[in-house]
Amino acid sequence: MPTDLDVICIGNAIVDVLSHAADDDIVRLDLNRGTMTLIEEDRAAELYAAMGPAVEASGGSAANTAAGIASLGGRAGFIGKVRDDAFGQIFAHDIKAIGVDFPTPPATEGPPTASCYIFITSDAHRTMNTYLGACVNLTPQDIDPAFIGRAQVTYMEGYLWDRPAAKDAFLTAAREAHGHGRKVSLTLSDPFCVDRHRDSFRDLVKGHVDILFANEDEIVSLYQVADFDAALQHARADCQIAALTRSEKGSVVIAGDEVHIVDAEAVPHVADTTGAGDLYASGFLYGLTNGHDLATCGRLGAIAAGEVISHVGSRPEVPLKDFAEERLGLKGAAD
Amino acid sequence: MPTDLDVICIGNAIVDVLSHAADDDIVRLDLNRGTMTLIEEDRAAELYAAMGPAVEASGGSAANTAAGIASLGGRAGFIGKVRDDAFGQIFAHDIKAIGVDFPTPPATEGPPTASCYIFITSDAHRTMNTYLGACVNLTPQDIDPAFIGRAQVTYMEGYLWDRPAAKDAFLTAAREAHGHGRKVSLTLSDPFCVDRHRDSFRDLVKGHVDILFANEDEIVSLYQVADFDAALQHARADCQIAALTRSEKGSVVIAGDEVHIVDAEAVPHVADTTGAGDLYASGFLYGLTNGHDLATCGRLGAIAAGEVISHVGSRPEVPLKDFAEERLGLKGAAD
Repeated sequence: MPTDLDVICIGNAIVDVLSHAADDDIVRLDLNRGTMTLIEEDRAAELYAAMGPAVEASGGSAANTAAGIASLGGRAGFIGKVRDDAFGQIFAHDIKAIGVDFPTPPATEGPPTASCYIFITSDAHRTMNTYLGACVNLTPQDIDPAFIGRAQVTYMEGYLWDRPAAKDAFLTAAREAHGHGRKVSLTLSDPFCVDRHRDSFRDLVKGHVDILFANEDEIVSLYQVADFDAALQHARADCQIAALTRSEKGSVVIAGDEVHIVDAEAVPHVADTTGAGDLYASGFLYGLTNGHDLATCGRLGAIAAGEVISHVGSRPEVPLKDFAEERLGLKGAAD
Repeated sequence: MPTDLDVICIGNAIVDVLSHAADDDIVRLDLNRGTMTLIEEDRAAELYAAMGPAVEASGGSAANTAAGIASLGGRAGFIGKVRDDAFGQIFAHDIKAIGVDFPTPPATEGPPTASCYIFITSDAHRTMNTYLGACVNLTPQDIDPAFIGRAQVTYMEGYLWDRPAAKDAFLTAAREAHGHGRKVSLTLSDPFCVDRHRDSFRDLVKGHVDILFANEDEIVSLYQVADFDAALQHARADCQIAALTRSEKGSVVIAGDEVHIVDAEAVPHVADTTGAGDLYASGFLYGLTNGHDLATCGRLGAIAAGEVISHVGSRPEVPLKDFAEERLGLKGAAD
């Protein structure tokens, strides 16, 4: 059966609350600088009260990736759980408005739509505090086998592993994808997420994942090795394709004997690194599912990440299709 | 009695929903390009469904002015009505977080917090569509005479005139301010707003307003004259001080025999003109209530407006105090 979607992304459906913060605020509020921390409702209220003026924008790691694929001109789907509240409406509006197929019905009871309180420091790094809210209600019932069968790749975020029902949904989706002869892709999401789930992530990567995304901290943590190169050799053995990102040092794409060293995109002013890894995955997976070679996939990842770090917020501000085609000299080639 | 606030602003309490749009969208959706249109709930739902991915940020004309005064280091208050819903919480959070005193309790019933659907075209101009929602519940009961008495200036937006109860609140506040020996200031808000209320605006300006803000279109419309210079002569006769803005042509400040021609601030890239007039008023009123001469008040207005048009959104992204002091060479002078 032919596929009519390039990629289906499964992840936490989150609205970001973004604010600039001073270095002192990070210390005073006892935040884990530069990482993602899970918080409960009381802590969310406490952090919001202590936060400066903010803007609200749809986020969520895999959801950002889906938005990026659609912005590149790809055909993307998203599975994730919101509540039928104001933030849920914002999330659903934004992901549909960019052209992503989002069939998951909102929860009509239980906790509110997830929110992530993001403190952006003057070095453009973000410290994220996520209240998962309605995301805990994502279950295997939200995975429609026929929907999964429509996409070349099913991509999931490691963050799903933090909730048992979402983890079951993940495994159900992986089985369905492979049952349809499709590929399964995973991002390790965050070094602390890897710490929480190292053994099961290793089994998952070895047994279920065809295309792996991770940054340097995450892949070194997964394999508990001394350096990036040692981690790379493990990933090479475990997955068909691994795309390993290293911030301004660029990325390494490895697939069996094939290796590509990809430079980061030059960005005149880095405003906010939120979404860099998510958009790298957008570019890479868009390239892979639209017939580009692996070196070009890496370049597309770097270009998409370069756009998103040049402004505040974790989704593209300009149509990535035109943006990427200009930079790659691809005008018209991917149509 | 001494004042402990510089300015109290009274206006519609609104959360902006901002999205980039193509010129075609403005035509297709039958929008009034470059202006503010009042809409009802059904039309709001229709426009949101047709809108691209958006970000949400607190707005409202007079509320933006209050936020700008606080960001400049001034002491500002705001009176306006939200509902006790998610957008109401966002509005209250943001205005308090920037340091504005916001005592108005939220409505616990009736329509939701106001929202403004803003389409930003590639020329950086904004087309605004406002659903006033809970703002219709601002009444004279929300005007606390003691609070008004605490500020040197009570500043109000012409948009309040669109709802009878809010208009009564405006007049109550103006009487209280003058009763305490304070100044009353008004912005005409929008040329269509002037069209809707020309006769009563003229009476208001002549009878109640000490400090008037208007742009070229608005002041020409108010006096129904052929050009800016003719309008200026009328304003000079009617008010103690008039600050008249002309976009990239700068502004004219007139007070009896005193006249100042103030250049616009050079902005490397104009991203979104939303809030330009609001922030001009912030700079001007901050200057006026902190002992600066009228020429410096105009410069402060131009500087604050220059910051807000350099990014998407209608409130400052950086602390305006440092931003303005650097540009004026005022470092420390206003402390």
